[in-house]
Amino acid sequence: MQTPIDASLIELENSSHRQNLAEDYASLGIRLARRNINIDQIKKQVATFNVAIPTWGVATGGTRFARFPNPGDPRDLYEKLEDCAVVQQLGQSTPTLSPHFPWDDVSDYNELRERANAYGLSFDAVNSNTFADQHGQLSYKYGSLTHTNSAVRSQAVQHNLECIEKGIQLGSKALTVWIGDGSNFPGQQDFTASLERYLESMRKIYARLPDDWQLFIEHKLYEPAFYATVIQDWGSNYLCAQELGNKAKCLVDLGHHAPTVNIEMIVARLIHFEKLAGFHFNDSKYGDDDLDSGSIQPFQLFLIFNELVAAELRNQPGFSPSYMLDQSHNVTDPIESLMNSAGNLRKAYCQALLVDRSRLASAQNDNDVLLAHNTLKQAFETDVEPIVASARLDFGGAIDPIETFRASGYRSRKAKARPQQLASGSGIV
Amino acid sequence: MQTPIDASLIELENSSHRQNLAEDYASLGIRLARRNINIDQIKKQVATFNVAIPTWGVATGGTRFARFPNPGDPRDLYEKLEDCAVVQQLGQSTPTLSPHFPWDDVSDYNELRERANAYGLSFDAVNSNTFADQHGQLSYKYGSLTHTNSAVRSQAVQHNLECIEKGIQLGSKALTVWIGDGSNFPGQQDFTASLERYLESMRKIYARLPDDWQLFIEHKLYEPAFYATVIQDWGSNYLCAQELGNKAKCLVDLGHHAPTVNIEMIVARLIHFEKLAGFHFNDSKYGDDDLDSGSIQPFQLFLIFNELVAAELRNQPGFSPSYMLDQSHNVTDPIESLMNSAGNLRKAYCQALLVDRSRLASAQNDNDVLLAHNTLKQAFETDVEPIVASARLDFGGAIDPIETFRASGYRSRKAKARPQQLASGSGIV
Amino acid sequence: MQTPIDASLIELENSSHRQNLAEDYASLGIRLARRNINIDQIKKQVATFNVAIPTWGVATGGTRFARFPNPGDPRDLYEKLEDCAVVQQLGQSTPTLSPHFPWDDVSDYNELRERANAYGLSFDAVNSNTFADQHGQLSYKYGSLTHTNSAVRSQAVQHNLECIEKGIQLGSKALTVWIGDGSNFPGQQDFTASLERYLESMRKIYARLPDDWQLFIEHKLYEPAFYATVIQDWGSNYLCAQELGNKAKCLVDLGHHAPTVNIEMIVARLIHFEKLAGFHFNDSKYGDDDLDSGSIQPFQLFLIFNELVAAELRNQPGFSPSYMLDQSHNVTDPIESLMNSAGNLRKAYCQALLVDRSRLASAQNDNDVLLAHNTLKQAFETDVEPIVASARLDFGGAIDPIETFRASGYRSRKAKARPQQLASGSGIV
Amino acid sequence: MQTPIDASLIELENSSHRQNLAEDYASLGIRLARRNINIDQIKKQVATFNVAIPTWGVATGGTRFARFPNPGDPRDLYEKLEDCAVVQQLGQSTPTLSPHFPWDDVSDYNELRERANAYGLSFDAVNSNTFADQHGQLSYKYGSLTHTNSAVRSQAVQHNLECIEKGIQLGSKALTVWIGDGSNFPGQQDFTASLERYLESMRKIYARLPDDWQLFIEHKLYEPAFYATVIQDWGSNYLCAQELGNKAKCLVDLGHHAPTVNIEMIVARLIHFEKLAGFHFNDSKYGDDDLDSGSIQPFQLFLIFNELVAAELRNQPGFSPSYMLDQSHNVTDPIESLMNSAGNLRKAYCQALLVDRSRLASAQNDNDVLLAHNTLKQAFETDVEPIVASARLDFGGAIDPIETFRASGYRSRKAKARPQQLASGSGIV
Repeated sequence: MQTPIDASLIELENSSHRQNLAEDYASLGIRLARRNINIDQIKKQVATFNVAIPTWGVATGGTRFARFPNPGDPRDLYEKLEDCAVVQQLGQSTPTLSPHFPWDDVSDYNELRERANAYGLSFDAVNSNTFADQHGQLSYKYGSLTHTNSAVRSQAVQHNLECIEKGIQLGSKALTVWIGDGSNFPGQQDFTASLERYLESMRKIYARLPDDWQLFIEHKLYEPAFYATVIQDWGSNYLCAQELGNKAKCLVDLGHHAPTVNIEMIVARLIHFEKLAGFHFNDSKYGDDDLDSGSIQPFQLFLIFNELVAAELRNQPGFSPSYMLDQSHNVTDPIESLMNSAGNLRKAYCQALLVDRSRLASAQNDNDVLLAHNTLKQAFETDVEPIVASARLDFGGAIDPIETFRASGYRSRKAKARPQQLASGSGIV
Repeated sequence: MQTPIDASLIELENSSHRQNLAEDYASLGIRLARRNINIDQIKKQVATFNVAIPTWGVATGGTRFARFPNPGDPRDLYEKLEDCAVVQQLGQSTPTLSPHFPWDDVSDYNELRERANAYGLSFDAVNSNTFADQHGQLSYKYGSLTHTNSAVRSQAVQHNLECIEKGIQLGSKALTVWIGDGSNFPGQQDFTASLERYLESMRKIYARLPDDWQLFIEHKLYEPAFYATVIQDWGSNYLCAQELGNKAKCLVDLGHHAPTVNIEMIVARLIHFEKLAGFHFNDSKYGDDDLDSGSIQPFQLFLIFNELVAAELRNQPGFSPSYMLDQSHNVTDPIESLMNSAGNLRKAYCQALLVDRSRLASAQNDNDVLLAHNTLKQAFETDVEPIVASARLDFGGAIDPIETFRASGYRSRKAKARPQQLASGSGIV
Repeated sequence: MQTPIDASLIELENSSHRQNLAEDYASLGIRLARRNINIDQIKKQVATFNVAIPTWGVATGGTRFARFPNPGDPRDLYEKLEDCAVVQQLGQSTPTLSPHFPWDDVSDYNELRERANAYGLSFDAVNSNTFADQHGQLSYKYGSLTHTNSAVRSQAVQHNLECIEKGIQLGSKALTVWIGDGSNFPGQQDFTASLERYLESMRKIYARLPDDWQLFIEHKLYEPAFYATVIQDWGSNYLCAQELGNKAKCLVDLGHHAPTVNIEMIVARLIHFEKLAGFHFNDSKYGDDDLDSGSIQPFQLFLIFNELVAAELRNQPGFSPSYMLDQSHNVTDPIESLMNSAGNLRKAYCQALLVDRSRLASAQNDNDVLLAHNTLKQAFETDVEPIVASARLDFGGAIDPIETFRASGYRSRKAKARPQQLASGSGIV
Repeated sequence: MQTPIDASLIELENSSHRQNLAEDYASLGIRLARRNINIDQIKKQVATFNVAIPTWGVATGGTRFARFPNPGDPRDLYEKLEDCAVVQQLGQSTPTLSPHFPWDDVSDYNELRERANAYGLSFDAVNSNTFADQHGQLSYKYGSLTHTNSAVRSQAVQHNLECIEKGIQLGSKALTVWIGDGSNFPGQQDFTASLERYLESMRKIYARLPDDWQLFIEHKLYEPAFYATVIQDWGSNYLCAQELGNKAKCLVDLGHHAPTVNIEMIVARLIHFEKLAGFHFNDSKYGDDDLDSGSIQPFQLFLIFNELVAAELRNQPGFSPSYMLDQSHNVTDPIESLMNSAGNLRKAYCQALLVDRSRLASAQNDNDVLLAHNTLKQAFETDVEPIVASARLDFGGAIDPIETFRASGYRSRKAKARPQQLASGSGIV
């Protein structure tokens, strides 16, 4: 297997942390044992949690105002592959990629798959893009799958069918469809007719889905449409998934909801009604801020994982969510942010595994509110870094991925090897 | 028919406005004729729009901090009836009442129905109350239809069944169920088990619904539960209505959504999927503020009516919503607020009737965004008071209900006739 | 004076509306006379309300996802000038431009001023831009006026000083400073040190302001910074304006506040404490959506103008706000949107002038809440289009600017005369 | 000193945890020592953090819909005193009370003070109440300190002066003024005149403040006023505090802001401009939910304490905030919630003390965003319960206050000793 970072460097870096980690793991093990928890079993479970990297996530992101590229940003998909391999090598929790077309168009998808495999990487859900024009095509300015012009809708459907074809070659098993279709002005769009057109288009896509594929529908309250969005919330998402059939499910992007909405409850509802596709993980304070997972509302992230673990434990029918990151790394090194975010997800998962479910259920049943709450808080407040780091170490990753990455000099090497065009900082206002 | 306000007073007040109204109606008629709109037909349609008064709405409302009663506030249901009769007599758009049990419990429901009929009033949907304890009962502190204790659930189900019985005697055709059940702390409640218990309880109520009745489910994001509410949004509401059957539909209270949510779109979705029960009308800026309809966001109210009129015009299957006011009149005279609010609803309905639907559809189809938008704005900006006032006048109401009410001296007479207990201003903090 | 649209075309278009307008103006005059309002005086006042066009507003805007240019979009500042001249010629309420540097950099500012004057246009506040990198400079990735590196701060200060120099040549009298400086992660920035650096930089700019100039500070809650913004709200804005001195004032962009915030109250406070600089007008439902003024929350717009008119009438010391549009026209023709928006502002101003202030004050004093409220609503519900259209007509503008613009064929002529580079629809995600 | 809980019981309960706590404290000490932190010093600092209990917080709270009292709820101020003494005895971080008048009116304030002292309790800021009527007075229905009627304003001023008098007898050093004054309808209130009246009233109160007293002004976005509140945000609060003088400062209640607002930044600004009075601590998801501190957004609480510790460390002039809880315990035992919340505050304070400030400053200066962020996260993710529990133990408190309280049987004893009137569950809707 190709490894972009020298294994001996990882070993060297790990050696300086190994002893402390062992001590911390041991003392945490003692504390958990008091709660009748076997730390080694928890570690093993944690090691099974993986999250896909979005291929667009390894390049520096931006806003409508500006984008400030990093030196060493990948310039094509193959350079992106290499960066993803770094994330996986050090963090050991991101063995899959979620590609986005046409951004990730290549001439030979088998070759792409092989080159990814060589890094130990494979492909998760593919994403279509009908929210921006491709040169020489009918414009998506006024919509794609819901456009009033059937020729535009056909083009958008066709693009999605091609995404499926590419995905088949890559070994993917799902298509994620997010459209920005909507309106900026009251009156611009007929809400009902738009949704009818959406369903008509989606039925054509659904009809061509291989038997072992799923169709992930992603809702979003606003942006780029600023008055109304066709698939605006989980309610509309659910209705559409239900209309389409069993292979259609609802994808939750944590940043796509109205302020103050209880997202963990939406997750619980989708699990309950067997329609949770999975997640685009990120964090946010205001809108679809696409910040690093766990950086703003870590307790909310834990509460979401609390629902996931509960569903897992009760063998909830139809429960098999896909996990993907979807972040915009505007001010950090994308490789560092991806490793850190994947680590935060594992921490949240680990904490959720630590919840004393029997005490929780009993307190809930007795309406012993404070005890029920503190049962969750006890798990959340546990510092699980020793477990998460050990899970990385067990599989050859870095105890401290950020520090190791920095020590590797990878980014500065790439800054030289990948000379960039001048910064495009003008943006759109 | 009993009329609490002397008809000659109304006539006297109207006489001072009659000439101006005729002129304004005529000049508006000319302007509308240019748009190929027959003002008389619009007026007739407007006169068909009625909204139910909530019996609790004629007494002064309050907040958790305090309640400041008005002199002359009704002290029992029969005094409330009389006040409702004033609202209907002057405004001529509120011929029905929506009662709330046990607040409106009486010993003889046939007598109540007759006394209402004597005022020309009848009964719309009945409302159950399981969000506050009734003395001597099992407590709803930790829930009602979703309580972990089956005895509490049974009591809550039983209360709803009794509401149906009372409603049958009153001539109602629907039961509205809003529960405050939810949680204040993460962990307090199992989201999934709570919803299962809710469905179990609701199925028992649904099973006892007469054939020609409907069950209206009301969702609310928060309050009194401040972390999570069992029926928190239209998505959960829809899922439950679907589980229960065709007679179950989703009621929209305008103040029960997250900030920035597009409510007219939710209305369109519920119409589209044949699950719109109707409305609890009010207005709000922050949360469930229960302010007077049309007082804060009149354009939003128009946009909602725009969806209703569009559904009416396309003969949308299953479209037959119920309209109720649900406001808390804390700083105004409730009778004045109710008349004013009902008038605002008719204005919004009237404006929606004025929309040039053919131009709108064509502009939408051509993605002529500004023209589509301005087509709505033209209707919204039309001053339709002459139509709404004439519709009242045609049926014996007041051209200016507020002014006429004040001239009648009704409130000051009641202030004497209904001596009150001392103000209860202590509130709950 | 140069007029991009043939005056005879305007006359032709107006001729088809002239008679109806006269009738509508007359009948409205009669209704207003009943309220003791002289319609001609109102019209004259309305005609004094003007709003500056942002030079960036005549080109199609976009989002971080994509930009979909219009055929005929202006390709340089001189083409923008011509488009602005169209807006002013037809709408007669936008005689000034608000330029943005370096976007509007030209080699000869005197020539620019003369060419604008030839169209009857002059220059309002100039805007600096330190939220995007200019090629070959120190990067603003981590801030500009607040950057931790003093060299970057100096560069940003210098840019602002150059903006003042350019503004002087153009005849401007104010500099508007909006910075995106802030942070995406808790911990990224020291809140206090950042503000100290901001003040240090701003003092240098303030010190070089000509005596008859003002410094407009613009706050914004978020975007492009998604965790914290240095000048995040009117409170921080006020503190800074106060620190700097009398020439510094607070600019309100309607889209830059938290959800549910009462913006008209903020306006009232800034007027009260003599720090209101003026406005960037637009409308929004979610965040800084930059939609057309009056398209989403027309009642809120009226309430803001209600505060402005009240301040005007009481001769509030220091009250002399600047009015600018700041919209992103993503799905409409920018010229049409600008004309329409300027018209909406005049409507709101006109309605605010119609408020019966004596009745309002008396009702407020008596806590006659409903009467006070309905006094505002009566003014808001008045269809003032006849006044606003007549005010345009009196000065040679179009009764129906949109229709006249479309009849002129201007856009299709420009689509030919201004061939564009291929659409850049890739966006930033 | 009077101790409501038998010290031997506490000792017994502690004995079962003492060994584990010692081990956990030791192993945490080792981990902290690696970060060059002396755990004992941290523990000492943590022990200095105290928060006042609001006297109204020991009785069960409610909403406008209902209040569900607990058996054993205190029935008068002296019973409240006893409950507060329990909170302090077990938690050892709440030695002061914040009383609220007229709720806490007694006939002899010296006696009250002595009885509190006997429990080891003293008095923090006193709170006035002009948001609810007191029998037989001029009504506050339309305002208090801002009422249009000067007689009502005088009454409200007089009440505040009496609060000062009572506070002097109790040993308080500050008056907290929160008013609900505002409006429910656009037009109801003149924003500017209202604020002028507020300032006029407050100047009279300020003038009578003893030299060593402070005046704490509390802002709130909405509720009970649902359109506009006179002191709606920190901006208006600051302006008023500045107008009044140095003794006037701005109190931050965590639940009183608009959705998504960055509260830690507001705290930083108030510290920066030397106007932070202190806090009313609680937590919330939607509005002024008054939930337990740290139960919903623990990371936000930490970030606020991060600002407080930073100010402490830089010896910020004028920095001396007061800390008070202000929660509504609707579904928990108030004594348990208060102990738990005070513990959560100490945890947040402790974590903020653990921040590696030198590394943070250096990362901030270098724009090493991820490192700066992770420096905060490392501190936040530290499980500091062993420190906080040890700090309690050192002063005679309980290692596990909730468990010890339950073991004491206090509540069930009080349920018998304090028979209650029937539940008042009717509420206000």
